[in-house]
Amino acid sequence: MESTTQKQIQLAQRPNGMPTAETFRFTNTSVPEPKEGEVLVRTLYLSVDPYMRGRMQDTKSYVEPFPLDEVIHGGVVGEIVQSNSPDFKRGDTIVGMLGWQEYSAVPAKAVRKIDPDVAPITTALGVLGMPGLTAYFGLLHIGQPQEGETVVVSGAAGAVGSLVGQIAKIKGARVVGIAGTEDKIQYLKELGFDETINYKTEDVQKALEKACPNGVDVYFDNVGGEISDAVYSLLNKFARVPICGAISSYNKAGEDLGPRVQMKLIKSSALMKGFVVGDYADRFEEGSRQLGAWVKNGSLKYEETIVEGFENIPDAFLGLFSGSNLGKQLVKVTDPLYAKI
Amino acid sequence: MESTTQKQIQLAQRPNGMPTAETFRFTNTSVPEPKEGEVLVRTLYLSVDPYMRGRMQDTKSYVEPFPLDEVIHGGVVGEIVQSNSPDFKRGDTIVGMLGWQEYSAVPAKAVRKIDPDVAPITTALGVLGMPGLTAYFGLLHIGQPQEGETVVVSGAAGAVGSLVGQIAKIKGARVVGIAGTEDKIQYLKELGFDETINYKTEDVQKALEKACPNGVDVYFDNVGGEISDAVYSLLNKFARVPICGAISSYNKAGEDLGPRVQMKLIKSSALMKGFVVGDYADRFEEGSRQLGAWVKNGSLKYEETIVEGFENIPDAFLGLFSGSNLGKQLVKVTDPLYAKI
Repeated sequence: MESTTQKQIQLAQRPNGMPTAETFRFTNTSVPEPKEGEVLVRTLYLSVDPYMRGRMQDTKSYVEPFPLDEVIHGGVVGEIVQSNSPDFKRGDTIVGMLGWQEYSAVPAKAVRKIDPDVAPITTALGVLGMPGLTAYFGLLHIGQPQEGETVVVSGAAGAVGSLVGQIAKIKGARVVGIAGTEDKIQYLKELGFDETINYKTEDVQKALEKACPNGVDVYFDNVGGEISDAVYSLLNKFARVPICGAISSYNKAGEDLGPRVQMKLIKSSALMKGFVVGDYADRFEEGSRQLGAWVKNGSLKYEETIVEGFENIPDAFLGLFSGSNLGKQLVKVTDPLYAKI
Repeated sequence: MESTTQKQIQLAQRPNGMPTAETFRFTNTSVPEPKEGEVLVRTLYLSVDPYMRGRMQDTKSYVEPFPLDEVIHGGVVGEIVQSNSPDFKRGDTIVGMLGWQEYSAVPAKAVRKIDPDVAPITTALGVLGMPGLTAYFGLLHIGQPQEGETVVVSGAAGAVGSLVGQIAKIKGARVVGIAGTEDKIQYLKELGFDETINYKTEDVQKALEKACPNGVDVYFDNVGGEISDAVYSLLNKFARVPICGAISSYNKAGEDLGPRVQMKLIKSSALMKGFVVGDYADRFEEGSRQLGAWVKNGSLKYEETIVEGFENIPDAFLGLFSGSNLGKQLVKVTDPLYAKI
């Protein structure tokens, strides 16, 4: 072993509103010993994702809340430094849901091997991982965009939104992206979005009416709140609204009030459906294969925003809510010792 | 002809909030002469329905707004008193979307013959008409209740809700009905609802939690507003919410604010879908046949609240919003002259 102690981040307090420095506790713990059938993983990259905010609360949700005073979990790409399983050897690169810590000892079945020769290993946390599958299934299974239809995406420059827009283009739809900085708007244009709206500088309602002269057939919603309110008034008959996220309300301390949507759904016979990527677990292979093929043939591009250093994990996480990331937000913890990437 | 002038009700003003006496204008007009291919219909029963409130406004909706200073339209059962079409003869009983007036001259294809020997003619405006088809398709196509699931129905004692609950029972679900008077609650019990909630006398949230120990799989929403807010917190994974009506907000002058539903849909991967019965126009025959069979074999019961007299149409309409009707609200205008019913 290279070290016998390691850094770890625990959930110190459940946040009320926006998480703060008090939400997180940096501690030093010993590097665990892998048991029989387990592997010891050295964390290379960590994923920070908006949904993790939900797990910091202890309300009923689709995933269990993070326990207090225990290590926070999320997507991790790492290298095997010790293996007590025939399925892995030192130097293998893996992805899994592991702790915000430098080393994790877990059963071999808790991680999945990734091939650094196929794509950069960070893509296992982005375009070829959960965000990619989220975009793929939410858009194609719920949204079902048809050729020539208008697809609106909020949070369009994020890890999921940027892929949603591109997949909608692949399917022949007209795509309108909503984001909040000029860099992001520029990025959406590079990705081939037909229209873009900067919700921080434009009147979203008016801009949407102009960008969607034929109304909205699919609204892929990552943000909720007032941006979504504006879109609902433009829904076409039989519109589909995959509800992927509601980042605008994650950090509200009280109840998030807004115009009721029922009448708008009746008027348009529209469908809204919440989902989490796990709903499609039995089809991940199909999704991964297609996403990989699109990346390979150049029709699906991706961006990563990488912050360096274990100590910057909380800031990288908080940055998601101020919109500081373009594409997938990652934290690089360290370079590999054994893996060839 | 029996008379040369007739009574008619026009839309005098678009209501802001609850309609009032000023909304409606009683006038006398001449009884029209049917042209070639037309029939002259004598109004026997008129249907008043909550959705008509939406047509009194001139906002974009799924149906055209009623024009100002013209006769209001709705479902009518009448008798043919003069026919210039080979398809109808005097004394035939018909149903169609006709004016709030004593006589209507319309093209023959605007009305459909009904057989008084099969079922009482009023059922063409209720269980075997639009309310029946609304319940049938909204529940079975969107709600898709499975055996043993929990189905919650709001507006449960109304024309649509009372049928929704019974159809859900036919499909083997556990049914919870929400209504607002003790008479209605008693009626729901007679219909075989498993649990009932009087939203005017009970704490809806607590009563729902008690009535739905296994959560809610299908919520057939006729009312929107605070009752629906309470149900959303109990939605099970993959719940389905057909949005049929939002009567609680029809008469609100401003925007109807409430807790945003997005997070709740994500947490439950639930589906909400607005619809109008016309979405299923190509399947009406299937629905009518099945509804008729259920009525015939006694598994589907229905109730009608009938007000007598043309002059009472506005009151019967307004009564929908104070919840005065049990089952289908109708107005009987007159007895037939020619039809054998």
